[in-house]
Amino acid sequence: MDPIDLRDPAEAARLIDQFLDDDDLRGAAELVAAMPPWLVVDVLERAGARERAVLFRLLSKDAAHVAFEALDPPLQSELIRDLHADRVGQIFAGLDPDDRAGLVDELPAHVATRLLRALSEDEQALTETVLGYPTGSVGRRMTPEFVTTHPGTTAAETLDRVARRIDEVETIYALPVTDDQRRLVGIVGLRAVMRADPDTLISELMNEAVTARARDSAEKAARRVADERLIVLPIVDDETRLVGILTFDDALQVLEDAESEDVARQGGAEPLRRPYLSTPVRSLFRSRIVWLLVLALGAALTVQVLEVFESTLEEVVALSLFVPLIIGTGGNTGNQAATTVTRALALGDVRPSDALRVLVQEVRTGFTLGLVLGGCGFGLAGLVYGFDLGLVIGATLLSLCTIAATVGGLMPLLARSVRADPAVFSNPFITTFVDATGLVVYFLIARTVLGL
Amino acid sequence: MDPIDLRDPAEAARLIDQFLDDDDLRGAAELVAAMPPWLVVDVLERAGARERAVLFRLLSKDAAHVAFEALDPPLQSELIRDLHADRVGQIFAGLDPDDRAGLVDELPAHVATRLLRALSEDEQALTETVLGYPTGSVGRRMTPEFVTTHPGTTAAETLDRVARRIDEVETIYALPVTDDQRRLVGIVGLRAVMRADPDTLISELMNEAVTARARDSAEKAARRVADERLIVLPIVDDETRLVGILTFDDALQVLEDAESEDVARQGGAEPLRRPYLSTPVRSLFRSRIVWLLVLALGAALTVQVLEVFESTLEEVVALSLFVPLIIGTGGNTGNQAATTVTRALALGDVRPSDALRVLVQEVRTGFTLGLVLGGCGFGLAGLVYGFDLGLVIGATLLSLCTIAATVGGLMPLLARSVRADPAVFSNPFITTFVDATGLVVYFLIARTVLGL
Repeated sequence: MDPIDLRDPAEAARLIDQFLDDDDLRGAAELVAAMPPWLVVDVLERAGARERAVLFRLLSKDAAHVAFEALDPPLQSELIRDLHADRVGQIFAGLDPDDRAGLVDELPAHVATRLLRALSEDEQALTETVLGYPTGSVGRRMTPEFVTTHPGTTAAETLDRVARRIDEVETIYALPVTDDQRRLVGIVGLRAVMRADPDTLISELMNEAVTARARDSAEKAARRVADERLIVLPIVDDETRLVGILTFDDALQVLEDAESEDVARQGGAEPLRRPYLSTPVRSLFRSRIVWLLVLALGAALTVQVLEVFESTLEEVVALSLFVPLIIGTGGNTGNQAATTVTRALALGDVRPSDALRVLVQEVRTGFTLGLVLGGCGFGLAGLVYGFDLGLVIGATLLSLCTIAATVGGLMPLLARSVRADPAVFSNPFITTFVDATGLVVYFLIARTVLGL
Repeated sequence: MDPIDLRDPAEAARLIDQFLDDDDLRGAAELVAAMPPWLVVDVLERAGARERAVLFRLLSKDAAHVAFEALDPPLQSELIRDLHADRVGQIFAGLDPDDRAGLVDELPAHVATRLLRALSEDEQALTETVLGYPTGSVGRRMTPEFVTTHPGTTAAETLDRVARRIDEVETIYALPVTDDQRRLVGIVGLRAVMRADPDTLISELMNEAVTARARDSAEKAARRVADERLIVLPIVDDETRLVGILTFDDALQVLEDAESEDVARQGGAEPLRRPYLSTPVRSLFRSRIVWLLVLALGAALTVQVLEVFESTLEEVVALSLFVPLIIGTGGNTGNQAATTVTRALALGDVRPSDALRVLVQEVRTGFTLGLVLGGCGFGLAGLVYGFDLGLVIGATLLSLCTIAATVGGLMPLLARSVRADPAVFSNPFITTFVDATGLVVYFLIARTVLGL
């Protein structure tokens, strides 16, 4: 068979389906062997559970290792269920300690224990170091294997040391510098070492290291890596002893997961734990139903509010025509502010201590938006339904935009300052809150203006 | 003064404000000199324009270069307006060609031309290479300076070559391999070169390179870097000749910008071009008003729909009580689906060609969600307002959830397949669309069930 240059995973998946339907496992194996590793991963992610297990068995040993490492832990765990015990043992031993820890969290306890026991003592110890830190901490995502150097060593000696350990470690491009007590005293890039005169001491080449503590949140540490464009972030314990490193590639994975989480929560759903197409409907359902029920409960508040003003509604039915417009605009204004501030928090541009500055920004912005929208509302509704109603609509939009922008901007800060995820007070939550508030404001203004 | 270990930029900014208020420029300069570079950047980003210019002048030459490079182009452009011409020339010459291109886009044309003319011929040529590609392409974000090697070279010769050029280039950790026509034939990691026997030929060490074309979108290329955890992505022209490299740190910046954009659009606003706190109210206003007006125009549709059903509303005023609940739930369901699929698109988990699979997933998920919510609605509304109304609410929620999830899931795919940003059909847009649809469904069901 010609090595096919496939770029479209859907096309690749279709071809493989065809081979499997024809029971042509050899054809499928040849096709898989010809595919670049990223395409193999893509096809595995998009396949159903059974097809995935069949495909995985067709991979060469090396390709299987690479592909397994790239899958999300829930998919890894599913695969393990379908594979032979000795194959599983090999794959498990071939993982990096941090990836192994991620998988252990997914596996049934008895499977995890059996696999851990089968590891060499060294590998067991490394895995346990990582497993010793709480889920969500950077200790769980760090690599406990690294090359260090010493401030009193020369550049030439350091290069020798790197050459000796080059096969064992995940990266050699940035070297933590530790003292005799294993305390971190700095960091030096391989480039600086290679560039220097061979006799230069590391103490003259090293820089102050940006670090994180092993119990710090993985997201915060990863954000640091991204912000400072680090290749390696040294991770220390409470006595500043070096316990691991977070490499930029692991940091990218952490950030990708964190961003998927933020985006999902802002859309009012729990994040998915695996790629969308391989997520069963029951998991999609579960990721959404709780939020929808909570939000519907909140929306029941709007029914109450409207009931209170039912007599007003009966008197001026035209008021009910504008209910969706009013609450929709309030919700949109609140969302805009909430999204902007949540993102600024995530990027570290804003902190909870900036609440006053955010308040001022949002009150002013909301008021300006309200002036424009309220002006339009007054004019248009006034022309069609009379200027009494126009005044009600205009005044409501002006007040509501100001309130919504302010509440939307401050909610994420409030969440952060009580150490909750800012996305917990997500856009749909703010929308629901603003809906109820908006209705109260609307009917109070209506009663006053229309003299009801 | 003691070197202060400041970790809180707000506190640092307060202290600096105090020095500036007291006209104690020396005190401020000492404080700034004691701050780590990331804190300096943070403080500059949070300062007002005038304070920023004063602070910037207090920095040492090196610190000024580092800080300037880290600022967003709009802030860089503002600073340049306030600085002396020769200082500006120095800073401009010190930037990497890709950063320089980003700044040129921000500057008034006559300033940009003057600055470009003052560069050395080499630097001018490099900058022009980058400026020759369209805005938003990876050609604009790549580094045109790199070390390459040749398949026929040995590992030892390659290390020599790296040593000779180590001072000039942005990274040495991954080396593109080119043939005699400068065509890219592979890539080799510095680690592989260091690890190999000195006489090994590069052709034995190199791997097939993941590449991007210079005219490809920067986001797509950066996503590739993140997905494959690359340190360097070689960029080629249409004849696969190497024209530049995208380093992982530049890729991170591209992704951060792209994600800020997605998040903002999903929240119904244009992305900000600078950090939130240094964004003036008029820019916040501008980033939001167009969306709000467009969405309000869409919401005017709901007024029309309600007008059509005004007689029904007059007959059964209780129907109006549930309007916010119905449209809110429909909007939330649509948002969830849209957010999930938009994220899956961004991560490459879903492609427009998967529309059928997405349709099936979302119809099933939406229907299941509708069953649960509709069931609750039927029971609760039935108990309080009678089972006729309960049936109306239940049936509406069931239909609406199914419609909303389907529309929400397919919209991002539709956008992508017409080559628009999926976030253009953002959550607020879907909400507005679902609002109008939901009202029509609601009143049609009400008329049928209640026999109006």
